[in-house]
Amino acid sequence: MAGHENGEADQHARENTVSGSPHSYVHGRSDSEFMRLHDQAAGLGSLLHEGTRYPPGSTVLEAGCGVGAQTLLLATNSPQAQFVSVDISPESLARAEELISGKGITNVTFRQADIGNLPFGTGTFDHVFVCFTLEHIPDPLSALGKLKTVLRPGGTITAIEGDHGTAVFSPDTPAAHHVIDCLVELQRQAGGNALIGRELEHLLLEAGFADVTVSPRQVYASSAITGSSEAVKSIFIAMIEGIREQVIAAGLANPEIWDRGIRDLHRTTEPGGMFCYTFFKAIGREKGAGS
Amino acid sequence: MAGHENGEADQHARENTVSGSPHSYVHGRSDSEFMRLHDQAAGLGSLLHEGTRYPPGSTVLEAGCGVGAQTLLLATNSPQAQFVSVDISPESLARAEELISGKGITNVTFRQADIGNLPFGTGTFDHVFVCFTLEHIPDPLSALGKLKTVLRPGGTITAIEGDHGTAVFSPDTPAAHHVIDCLVELQRQAGGNALIGRELEHLLLEAGFADVTVSPRQVYASSAITGSSEAVKSIFIAMIEGIREQVIAAGLANPEIWDRGIRDLHRTTEPGGMFCYTFFKAIGREKGAGS
Repeated sequence: MAGHENGEADQHARENTVSGSPHSYVHGRSDSEFMRLHDQAAGLGSLLHEGTRYPPGSTVLEAGCGVGAQTLLLATNSPQAQFVSVDISPESLARAEELISGKGITNVTFRQADIGNLPFGTGTFDHVFVCFTLEHIPDPLSALGKLKTVLRPGGTITAIEGDHGTAVFSPDTPAAHHVIDCLVELQRQAGGNALIGRELEHLLLEAGFADVTVSPRQVYASSAITGSSEAVKSIFIAMIEGIREQVIAAGLANPEIWDRGIRDLHRTTEPGGMFCYTFFKAIGREKGAGS
Repeated sequence: MAGHENGEADQHARENTVSGSPHSYVHGRSDSEFMRLHDQAAGLGSLLHEGTRYPPGSTVLEAGCGVGAQTLLLATNSPQAQFVSVDISPESLARAEELISGKGITNVTFRQADIGNLPFGTGTFDHVFVCFTLEHIPDPLSALGKLKTVLRPGGTITAIEGDHGTAVFSPDTPAAHHVIDCLVELQRQAGGNALIGRELEHLLLEAGFADVTVSPRQVYASSAITGSSEAVKSIFIAMIEGIREQVIAAGLANPEIWDRGIRDLHRTTEPGGMFCYTFFKAIGREKGAGS
């Protein structure tokens, strides 16, 4: 299965481009990745979406909706807002559309689009929402600039990203850090940045947004907190496990060291262990030309 | 001044022992360190002490009160509890006593004591509070065991520690990480553990405490948040700056690389920069022999 995921990722690396640069979704687009993304969204939904409610009648662009994991939360939390959810991958869009229509949700329109070349006019949207997307884009600052142009003066952007450098765990072993570092490096080689959470504040500022605020959203998981260690397994560790073949093919780790690191990560979910991770949620405002 | 601090730390390393092991307070005991500790306690007081209120008439042991920075908050927040604050350093105790009596606070008794050899009988205290102390102790598990014996059945322990591995910042440079790593290594050589926050859960469990819960307390600092970057300078960066001479003497960094790292850390407090850090607050209960 991991080999299948790897093959899909390679295929997408060849097919997709963002602003002319090669684009690979490092985690692949397999069924297991689909399940992982939905586990992630469901488990972290209240943590990440707290405070994100859009007024009735407002129009919101979701940039990089993927398989619709965040779309489901957005549309449910703001049932009277109108969402336009775009993604570069037709395959992901089809899954997202199936998910949303299957839930009987009617306030989302899907559209295939490249963030670097959006098919919308200046000031089209009241708000923009972008989650776990900037981390995969070679030039996130340019992407933010494009998103800014489709936002009306006074509108807001909400950007949510993780940062694998915030992962702190016990037992703490070099092998466990190594497998995380392998994902960071693989994502870097694919043009992304798995450490982008810490950069959100200056990226939004440099893109010209006003009133930029960032709130960290931290998860502490241990066997003392019901379900938390299971979430670490199904979200974070599954994400790392999913890139095994790519990492080995890229020469970033040998199988023995890799498997030891994965085993060590699993130990952080056992009694006495802990795993801590921080997401960053940034909000900025399009101040408009006149202000 | 840094040289003076270094000399003091060396002197204490020779004079003090904890459970027979050499004990050095890695940050020294200078006037500037006294000010830094009080800035830290004042700035982080509400974050770290939230939820820590002791009932009227209860007796609380503060283990490792240092110069009284946390004592002031403890005694003020729980004015009808009775505190016994101990420290291994007579010099620190004198400063703590001066601080507390100067504030007209009367519910604290100070006593010179080694956590490894406490002059209190079994079950003396209703609660134990220990903050920024376990990180400097060569055998924190043994220390927790000693603290457990002086706690009555049903009593609680509250342990608060930082973890320098949680420091995430932008701009993110190798030199800035290097100076933090130097402190971690220096503290390790002195018998401590600057990454102990992540270990609190299993340490309390292994020491035999029941109902162990840990809550992370995260700080996000940037120029967008009034006063936060100043706090990073006066608390965290000042702490790193204070060990310059020790680090260079120990051969952990050369002056040029050190100064570059410090300069880079200061850049995280400038507009567009950010600095994030997590403290861990653990609570456990002495379940008693019968339960």
